[in-house]
Amino acid sequence: MSGPIPVLRTLPQMRELTGQWRRAGESFGLVPTMGALHAGHLELVRQVKARCRHVVVSIFVNPTQFAPHEDFDRYPRDEAGDLAKLASVGCDAVWSPDREVMYPAGFATRVVPAGAAEGLETDFRPHFFGGVATVCCKLFTQVGPDIAAFGEKDFQQLAVVRQMVRDLDLPLQILGVPTVREADGLAMSSRNAYLSAAQRAQATAMYRSITALAAAARAGADLASAEAAAGKALRDAGFDKVDYVAVRDATTLKPPAAGTTEGLRVLAAAWLGKTRLIDNIPV
Amino acid sequence: MSGPIPVLRTLPQMRELTGQWRRAGESFGLVPTMGALHAGHLELVRQVKARCRHVVVSIFVNPTQFAPHEDFDRYPRDEAGDLAKLASVGCDAVWSPDREVMYPAGFATRVVPAGAAEGLETDFRPHFFGGVATVCCKLFTQVGPDIAAFGEKDFQQLAVVRQMVRDLDLPLQILGVPTVREADGLAMSSRNAYLSAAQRAQATAMYRSITALAAAARAGADLASAEAAAGKALRDAGFDKVDYVAVRDATTLKPPAAGTTEGLRVLAAAWLGKTRLIDNIPV
Repeated sequence: MSGPIPVLRTLPQMRELTGQWRRAGESFGLVPTMGALHAGHLELVRQVKARCRHVVVSIFVNPTQFAPHEDFDRYPRDEAGDLAKLASVGCDAVWSPDREVMYPAGFATRVVPAGAAEGLETDFRPHFFGGVATVCCKLFTQVGPDIAAFGEKDFQQLAVVRQMVRDLDLPLQILGVPTVREADGLAMSSRNAYLSAAQRAQATAMYRSITALAAAARAGADLASAEAAAGKALRDAGFDKVDYVAVRDATTLKPPAAGTTEGLRVLAAAWLGKTRLIDNIPV
Repeated sequence: MSGPIPVLRTLPQMRELTGQWRRAGESFGLVPTMGALHAGHLELVRQVKARCRHVVVSIFVNPTQFAPHEDFDRYPRDEAGDLAKLASVGCDAVWSPDREVMYPAGFATRVVPAGAAEGLETDFRPHFFGGVATVCCKLFTQVGPDIAAFGEKDFQQLAVVRQMVRDLDLPLQILGVPTVREADGLAMSSRNAYLSAAQRAQATAMYRSITALAAAARAGADLASAEAAAGKALRDAGFDKVDYVAVRDATTLKPPAAGTTEGLRVLAAAWLGKTRLIDNIPV
């Protein structure tokens, strides 16, 4: 690639490009994002580029996955900065539809997930995975990639997208990519930009807390007690509210049977002021 | 074509065939059916064959669009008869997945339509269009056709499918094909097989009633009175229950503004004994 990355804003433009690749027999992958790109997103692009000839990154801050009281309006947006970062990792095109392209007047159909979507995030953000599943289904049918990559940072989202792709027979492969972390363990997230310096220091307790809980689960500790201790550790470190810190089956995201110590995942969501952080690790 | 029509029952088989066509640059279309094929279905195949190099007919009696009290178990099934009919109109392959292929254990995602799905059929079969939208989405992603054809006989279903395809950006064109009728006007339907000889004679009142209502609407009659008269005509002719006889906007399926005489459609659903018949015509 030379020159600026093409930014496509209409479906005919997008399909013209992918149609050229398809007719030439060239593979291509998709990295769906809401922009405000960080090193975790760039790793997704690299992982897709290692598997496909071309990579499309979508940038769309999806209103339907935010509740009215959530941070849609203040969610960070920086297209120029995002394009500069994407140029450094070989992104071939950016798919950035306007809201009216994604949800034109009269739009009415919803993709409603279940299974992996039940519990955890859904207990606190009941609208969330419906918005995610619908927009991801549309991104996949708009772009038509061979592979789409998602970070494990949003572990339940990854499970929901996998389930939707399987259930709806969408002809692509979903690639989960391990979370990229700061040097002190904090998972990279666009929402980290909301943190004050003091909150940024407190935020490191999230990774410490789930690491300790994973060790306890591996050792066969009583899960309810260990989860309670992990939640207390977060509050003691300055988190204002803990939505959940839980050990779950890594595939179904259901609570594991008593005595299970393998195939588990620790997941957490908690608040520092107005900022909600999530993280997870394997047991 | 020579030899019997291939009947494919697994997704890898289906995608192997369509992948060959796609790589060769050959177009193909899909006619989704529940089997028990009649002249209306064969017309759909002919219309697709006139536009595409190949035609796939799917045969799947979709359990999720029947309520527990409806006729899923007694719905007519005749694969051998269907294949013989399809051979006569140039069908290239039949996609006939088992229930476990369509809905494997753990299946959980639903496609939920709105807009055109509201009212009419939904008032009487609230489960129906959710089942139709989900299975049609899956058939489209399984087969990946350029065109899919549906009869206007199920006019609201056609509108729901069009809306879903538009909303989810599914990369295919939906072709609506005018209803094929018996000599006396009765719309062809697999469910006509349920009718006794006496009911079959009474059934012709459906077409007469909606034709009269369309003429009244065209003439600017008061719609509420004309609809009531059409319903009375059905009951007088022996129909046991009238779900609806209504004049609607042909695109949105909403009740038209007073005084509208163009862009309308007459739709009806009514019962002869245990058999529910539907029909519709343009105004």
